[in-house]
Amino acid sequence: MIQTDICIIGAGPVGLFAVFEAGLLKLRCHLVDALPQVGGQLSEIYPQKPIYDIPGFPEVKAQELVDNLMDQIKPFNPTFTLGERLDKVEKTATGFELRTSDGTEIDCKVVVIAGGLGCFEPRKPPLKEIADFEGKGVSYMVKDPEQFRDKNVILAGGGDSALDWTIELSKIAKKITLVHRNETFRGAPDSADKVFELAKEGKINLLLKSNLASLSGNGKLNSVKVTGADKSEMELEADYLVPLFGLSPKLGPIADWGLSIHKNQIEVNTEDYSTNVPGIYAIGDINTYKGKLKLILCGFHEAALMAQSAFKHIYPDKHLSFKYTTVNGIESF
Amino acid sequence: MIQTDICIIGAGPVGLFAVFEAGLLKLRCHLVDALPQVGGQLSEIYPQKPIYDIPGFPEVKAQELVDNLMDQIKPFNPTFTLGERLDKVEKTATGFELRTSDGTEIDCKVVVIAGGLGCFEPRKPPLKEIADFEGKGVSYMVKDPEQFRDKNVILAGGGDSALDWTIELSKIAKKITLVHRNETFRGAPDSADKVFELAKEGKINLLLKSNLASLSGNGKLNSVKVTGADKSEMELEADYLVPLFGLSPKLGPIADWGLSIHKNQIEVNTEDYSTNVPGIYAIGDINTYKGKLKLILCGFHEAALMAQSAFKHIYPDKHLSFKYTTVNGIESF
Ligand SMILES: Cc1cc2nc3c(=O)[nH]c(=O)nc-3n(C[C@H](O)[C@H](O)[C@H](O)COP(=O)(O)OP(=O)(O)OC[C@H]3O[C@@H](n4cnc5c(N)ncnc54)[C@H](O)[C@@H]3O)c2cc1C
Ligand SMILES: Cc1cc2nc3c(=O)[nH]c(=O)nc-3n(C[C@H](O)[C@H](O)[C@H](O)COP(=O)(O)OP(=O)(O)OC[C@H]3O[C@@H](n4cnc5c(N)ncnc54)[C@H](O)[C@@H]3O)c2cc1C
Repeated sequence: MIQTDICIIGAGPVGLFAVFEAGLLKLRCHLVDALPQVGGQLSEIYPQKPIYDIPGFPEVKAQELVDNLMDQIKPFNPTFTLGERLDKVEKTATGFELRTSDGTEIDCKVVVIAGGLGCFEPRKPPLKEIADFEGKGVSYMVKDPEQFRDKNVILAGGGDSALDWTIELSKIAKKITLVHRNETFRGAPDSADKVFELAKEGKINLLLKSNLASLSGNGKLNSVKVTGADKSEMELEADYLVPLFGLSPKLGPIADWGLSIHKNQIEVNTEDYSTNVPGIYAIGDINTYKGKLKLILCGFHEAALMAQSAFKHIYPDKHLSFKYTTVNGIESF
Repeated sequence: MIQTDICIIGAGPVGLFAVFEAGLLKLRCHLVDALPQVGGQLSEIYPQKPIYDIPGFPEVKAQELVDNLMDQIKPFNPTFTLGERLDKVEKTATGFELRTSDGTEIDCKVVVIAGGLGCFEPRKPPLKEIADFEGKGVSYMVKDPEQFRDKNVILAGGGDSALDWTIELSKIAKKITLVHRNETFRGAPDSADKVFELAKEGKINLLLKSNLASLSGNGKLNSVKVTGADKSEMELEADYLVPLFGLSPKLGPIADWGLSIHKNQIEVNTEDYSTNVPGIYAIGDINTYKGKLKLILCGFHEAALMAQSAFKHIYPDKHLSFKYTTVNGIESF
């Protein structure tokens, strides 16, 4: 069981900066994120794009801002559980006990939800039987390419992930089929050219203007039916099906923690960004209040006010004197 | 008469960033500051000190942050009136008419007070007749050293300004006397050494453990009485007296604009940081609300929410769609 003062759910820019504000008050933080990397939307959606409205940066690439924030919080030694979704929050005598999708347990005094737009979850093809095959031949991301060596693999999608993995896996799989509903690809033109070339050379099987129609198998995926441009159906043998239709954020388990939620956002008090549950705060894109703007710089402010209040929640009898970093520096721990 | 959409009173970090947030919404800004330079407390009090809690900067010198903000707002071409105090705010049919201490007039639709701790005003020696001689021999800062060439000048104080001006003016004045109540100086040791040396060489008249006692003259300063360590009084001929006792911020004229003020701070609505007077906003150190922290990063957030509301105040019928800078860039004007 991980023990910490504050458990921050979401390691986007706002969750990361919360570590700094908590650290100034000597509160330790553990962060949990469903994604395998920190940085939230910035690292997942637009790492190489410039942001212009971070105060003091006429221009900063999203990933660069995340890297800077990681440097800034380093003195406070935050700990991380990445690639796991925070599923359960339960009140205990001294605070909260949390549990992730992979069973990691965290014991903390305060919970800070910095969950952004929610967990990034894969968009799934609309096939009713797909749930039966998840983990049994169907997966929505490539964690370990070796799993596909010498196998019959069907990929689906038209973005960069679909193109990149088609190219990579064509080197090791027994057979690769890429199913895409259009004739052209959304991904990088270079990758698309490469995929067309692989198809011409007969190294992959490219099915354009085609859709996944149904899956079958006996406890394990066995074959995939695909509808072609001319409505014809074709049954393909398959050890694996990997639909790569992108990630879309979902509020997910947060909806079940007894919080006051309005239009998928958590209602907070702007005095300290506390929720209706004492000891649980919500900052950044995930919260809502009158005047709310979903901007990174607003989340930073929310993190600062939250930290003061979290300190008082944890130490109701301690006096908190307000100090400038310029005058006091930052004492790491 | 200067015409603008928004007049920002105070060109500290928060006033500066407000130009950016207003600019994104195509609102033009004019800034007024009583100090001769921009940057507020950062440039006036601690330009070379590092700040650690600006998000994305593990460390940034105060003046560097100000310079970055000036770069960031450049595309929006803000205009400035520096070295003048904003004294009067009057409602007009279309907005407000403002007037500075030097008579500059500004016509605007919205007023944003980013006045920090207030105007930096000189600390004055406690002599009741001093007001009679202000501008008639007494001044609290050295604007143009040439004014003192071949004159009898009395300086008072023990900080860097007093030491630096004693050294500089000793080169051109007829006679320089430095009056200081202690035996040691608060200013840089090097400068203090230099002043002691000048005194030993007879190039200046150094009166330690001494205080200004009274002034006399006829419409213009003529002589200054000084009390020595042994309580003896000494009358010194003087064309000029320059007390350099530091600057201290004063709320000043802002108190008279009909705003709801609590403990020298302006009460605001956290939804948009509006004051009790429609069309007047207050952001940064000058405002107060439940949970308020006098931090630069909080002022940045306040500026963003203010700008949205100011836009709606100016264009009640226009639709404002919220856009990310990353997606839309910044269109300068
Ligand atoms: C294309 C684009 C451009 C943008 N441009 C700008 C811009 O110019 N300026 C600006 O200020 N903003 C911009 N934004 C918005 C900005 O990215 C968000 O405001 C910011 O990411 C919010 O940060 P956050 O930390 O609140 O949440 P996020 O960045 O969304 O991070 C939240 C994290 O929480 C995790 N999470 C959620 N629920 C759980 C759970 N139950 N368990 C574990 N982890 C969970 C998610 O996986 C995610 O990593 C832009 C957004 C996009 C998409
Ligand atoms: C030594 C020190 C260290 C600090 N360290 C930190 C830190 O580490 N982190 C942090 O976040 N903050 C720190 N601060 C606080 C920070 O400096 C303030 O929060 C910040 O300056 C507030 O910005 P502002 O723009 O609201 O006001 P200010 O910087 O105070 O600027 C206000 C400006 O308004 C002008 N003004 C006021 N009234 C009028 C008028 N009537 N007419 C014309 N001009 C007017 C003033 O001349 C001034 O230039 C520190 C402060 C000090 C003194």
